[in-house]
Amino acid sequence: MTGGTALLTDQYELTMLDAALADGTADRRATFEVFARSLPHGRRYGVVAGTARVLESLAHFSYGDDELAALRATGALSERVLAHLADFRFAGDVVGYPEGELYFPGSPVLSVSGTFAECVLFETLVLSILNHDCAIASAAARMTTAAAGRRLIEMGSRRTHEQAAVAAARSAYLAGFDATSNLEASARYGVPTTGTSAHAFTLLHDTEEEAFRAQVAALGVGTTLLVDTYDITEGIETAVRVAGPELGAVRIDSGDLGVMAQRARHQLDSLGATNTRVVLSGDLDEHAIAGLRAEPVDAYGVGTSVVTGSGAPTAGMVYKLVEVDGRPVAKRSSSKESRGGAKSAVRRHRPTGTAVEEVVHRLDHPVGLGEHDRVVPIDLVKSGEVVAGLPSLAESRERLRANLVAIPWEGLKLSRGEPAIPTTFVP
Amino acid sequence: MTGGTALLTDQYELTMLDAALADGTADRRATFEVFARSLPHGRRYGVVAGTARVLESLAHFSYGDDELAALRATGALSERVLAHLADFRFAGDVVGYPEGELYFPGSPVLSVSGTFAECVLFETLVLSILNHDCAIASAAARMTTAAAGRRLIEMGSRRTHEQAAVAAARSAYLAGFDATSNLEASARYGVPTTGTSAHAFTLLHDTEEEAFRAQVAALGVGTTLLVDTYDITEGIETAVRVAGPELGAVRIDSGDLGVMAQRARHQLDSLGATNTRVVLSGDLDEHAIAGLRAEPVDAYGVGTSVVTGSGAPTAGMVYKLVEVDGRPVAKRSSSKESRGGAKSAVRRHRPTGTAVEEVVHRLDHPVGLGEHDRVVPIDLVKSGEVVAGLPSLAESRERLRANLVAIPWEGLKLSRGEPAIPTTFVP
Repeated sequence: MTGGTALLTDQYELTMLDAALADGTADRRATFEVFARSLPHGRRYGVVAGTARVLESLAHFSYGDDELAALRATGALSERVLAHLADFRFAGDVVGYPEGELYFPGSPVLSVSGTFAECVLFETLVLSILNHDCAIASAAARMTTAAAGRRLIEMGSRRTHEQAAVAAARSAYLAGFDATSNLEASARYGVPTTGTSAHAFTLLHDTEEEAFRAQVAALGVGTTLLVDTYDITEGIETAVRVAGPELGAVRIDSGDLGVMAQRARHQLDSLGATNTRVVLSGDLDEHAIAGLRAEPVDAYGVGTSVVTGSGAPTAGMVYKLVEVDGRPVAKRSSSKESRGGAKSAVRRHRPTGTAVEEVVHRLDHPVGLGEHDRVVPIDLVKSGEVVAGLPSLAESRERLRANLVAIPWEGLKLSRGEPAIPTTFVP
Repeated sequence: MTGGTALLTDQYELTMLDAALADGTADRRATFEVFARSLPHGRRYGVVAGTARVLESLAHFSYGDDELAALRATGALSERVLAHLADFRFAGDVVGYPEGELYFPGSPVLSVSGTFAECVLFETLVLSILNHDCAIASAAARMTTAAAGRRLIEMGSRRTHEQAAVAAARSAYLAGFDATSNLEASARYGVPTTGTSAHAFTLLHDTEEEAFRAQVAALGVGTTLLVDTYDITEGIETAVRVAGPELGAVRIDSGDLGVMAQRARHQLDSLGATNTRVVLSGDLDEHAIAGLRAEPVDAYGVGTSVVTGSGAPTAGMVYKLVEVDGRPVAKRSSSKESRGGAKSAVRRHRPTGTAVEEVVHRLDHPVGLGEHDRVVPIDLVKSGEVVAGLPSLAESRERLRANLVAIPWEGLKLSRGEPAIPTTFVP
C-alpha cells in the first residue's frame, strides 16, 4: 500500500503511454473530455461533485520508488516508461464544471489538456472520483428536494467501502444534507457530524430505562433516544419520564414509519414534550421521504440509499480523447459515438432566471452570451498549478441550492423523465 | 486526513461508549455478531470476502493525537471518553467465516467478543468492509459461474470510488476472476494485472494502422488490439496485417457482442490467426456473459456490473449485540428481530459432498457433527492477536471454488430463487 494516488489506475494507461513514448506520439497535444452520455434511470439532472477531490488527487499523483518498484513487478512495462514516470509532473490545464453545478447528457464536465503523455494517465482516477461522487450527490440532491426543508442526516457509512463512505458523506453534504455520522468526513472536510444511539446500547443495559438514564446523564437531555428496541409506545413514555419534556428527539428505526411518526408526535405532545423532535430512519430513499411529507417528521436518517446512489451507484461518465494537435477526433463505430473537439458550455436562462438550455459548443466555435446566460466551466488548473480561490464546500453547497431553484419545476420531479433542460450541440 | 482507520466510524459508537463508561456498563462482556437477514435480489448464496481487510484495519485502529484532536473538535465527546480512547487497544476475540466461504441468511459471518467498550467501536468499520467486499465477491462469483471457465478480467476501477476499486479487484479475484486492470491491487494484494488499449490510443494516431504498429512494436505481437474504433472488420484485417497471425487477441467493446464475436472468429480464422483470442467488453454482467456461452469468446472484460455488485452494491450485513455477560439479548420490536446468544454454525453435507443445510446454533447448545459435516467459523483473533496461518488470498479463492462445487446445482442458477441450502436455527 502506497500513500500516493498514482497506482490507483488501470495498467493500460501506462502501456499506452509506453507505446506512445516509443513512437513519438506521446508529445502530441491532447484534450480529454469527461462527460456522461445519459443520466441514469431517467433522472432529470446530475450534480457535479468530486472536482476538489480530483484536484487534490492530481497533486499527489507522482511515482516514487515504491510505485516504480510495484510497476516493475507487473512485468508489463518497459524501463523507458518507468524512467519517464519517475520524472512525471502534470503541467497541463484543467477546465471544468465547479462542484454543485448541474450537468446534463453531453455536458463537458471536465476537460484535461496537455501532452497525451500527461493527460492519459489520469483517466482511471478522474473517472473513479467523479463517477462515485457525482452518483452520490445526484441521489442526495433528490432526497434534499423530497425532504422539503426537513433535516437530513447521512448515516450510510456501514453500507459502503470505508473510504467511499467518507467521500459519500462529503457529497451528501454538498447536495444539501445537514450532517453525517462519519467522523473522518468531519476531520477531512469539515462536514458537521451528529449521532443518536444504537439498539446495542439499550440491550447492553438491564432495562431500557437504565439505558436512557445513562445516555441522558452523559449526553444531556438534548440527545436523541432510540425508542424502538422493545415497544415504541413504552419507549417514548420512558424516554420522556427519564429526560423530561426537554428531550431533544426520539428516533424510530423500524415499523410503518408514517404511522409511527403520527403516533409518536401525538404521544409526545400529550406528554408535554411538544418540542421533542421525531427522527425516522430505516431504508429511506427519496421516494419514501417524499411519501412522509404529510407526516409530523422532523428529521430523516438516510443510509444505504444515499451511499449507493439510490439505484445508480455510478454516474457513467467517460474520459474521451476529443482533440489531438488541434484536430477533433472521435470514435465512429456503433452506439458509443462521441463528438470531437475541445468544448465549453453555456447555460441559457429566461429573464426570470429559469434555465432553458445547455449549449455545448466547440472552443473554436464560440456562441453568443445573452444577458441572462453564463459560461458553465471554470478554470481549475493552469500549467499544472491549481487555480487560487476555487469554491469552498460551503460555496458549492450554495451553488447547487441556487441551481436547483433555477431549473424548470418539472426538473425536480422524482419520477423518471427527460433531462430538465435539453442539451444542444453546436457543431 | 489521518493514516489510521479509527475515524472511519460513526460518531454514535463513541457517544455510546462515552455513556457506557460513565455508568459502568462499558466493561460488561459482550458479543456482537455480523450476519445478513437475507440475500439480496433472490440470490442463492453470498460469498464472504473482506475478512483479511477487517483484521488489517483492526490492527491500525488506534487513536493518536491527530485522531483525538479531530474527535475533540466535534464537540460531541467528553474528556472521559477521549482519555479512554488514547489508551485503546482491542484485546478481545474474533471468530468468523473464512474468506471464500459461502454464507446464507442468518449465518454468523463474524463474532466479536470482549468488553462492550472494545467491541462497539468496530461496528461501522467492520460493516463497511464486509458489506462492500461481500457484495462484490457475491456478484463476481456468479459471473465466474456464467463464464464457465473462460477468462474474466475485472476492469471496473473507473466506475467506483478509487479505493473501493482496489478492494473490488481483490474481491473479484477471490471470486474467480483471472486478473484486474487495477495496479494498486497488484501492489497491495498481488492480484495479477492485465490490460489492452483504449480508443484514445487509436485516435491519437493518424491512422488505426499506425496505432496498431506502435502498440505491437512496444508490447509485442502477444498484445490485445482494440479493433472497434472505426470499423470492426477493417480493424481486424489491419490488426492481423500488422501483427501477423500470432496476434494475441482482439478486443471488441461495442455493438451486438454475440454477432461480433462470431464474425471476428470467422474472420480471424480465415486470416490464419486461429490462435488469436476474442476478448469482449462493454456492459457485461452475469446474464450477458451467460448469454454469450455459445459464442466463440475467449475472455470477458467486466466493469460496472462487478464493482457495483450487479444490482446489489451492499451486502446488507448488520452488527448486532447478541450477548451481554453471558445472557442472550435481542431487539424485539417489529420486522427487524434478531436471535440472541453467541453462535456458531455447522454445514451439513451428504456423503457425496453436497451441502444440504446450514445449522446455526448457540455456542452453549452445540450440535452433533456428522462424518461429512464441518464447523464453518474459524478463530481469527485471540486476545487481541491475529491468529497465525490464516488462509492466503489464493487459498480463499480455492476455498470458494470448492464450496461452489459442493452446493446443490440449483444454487448456481442465475435466476432469482431461494437460498441454495436452508438455514436451520437451533434454539
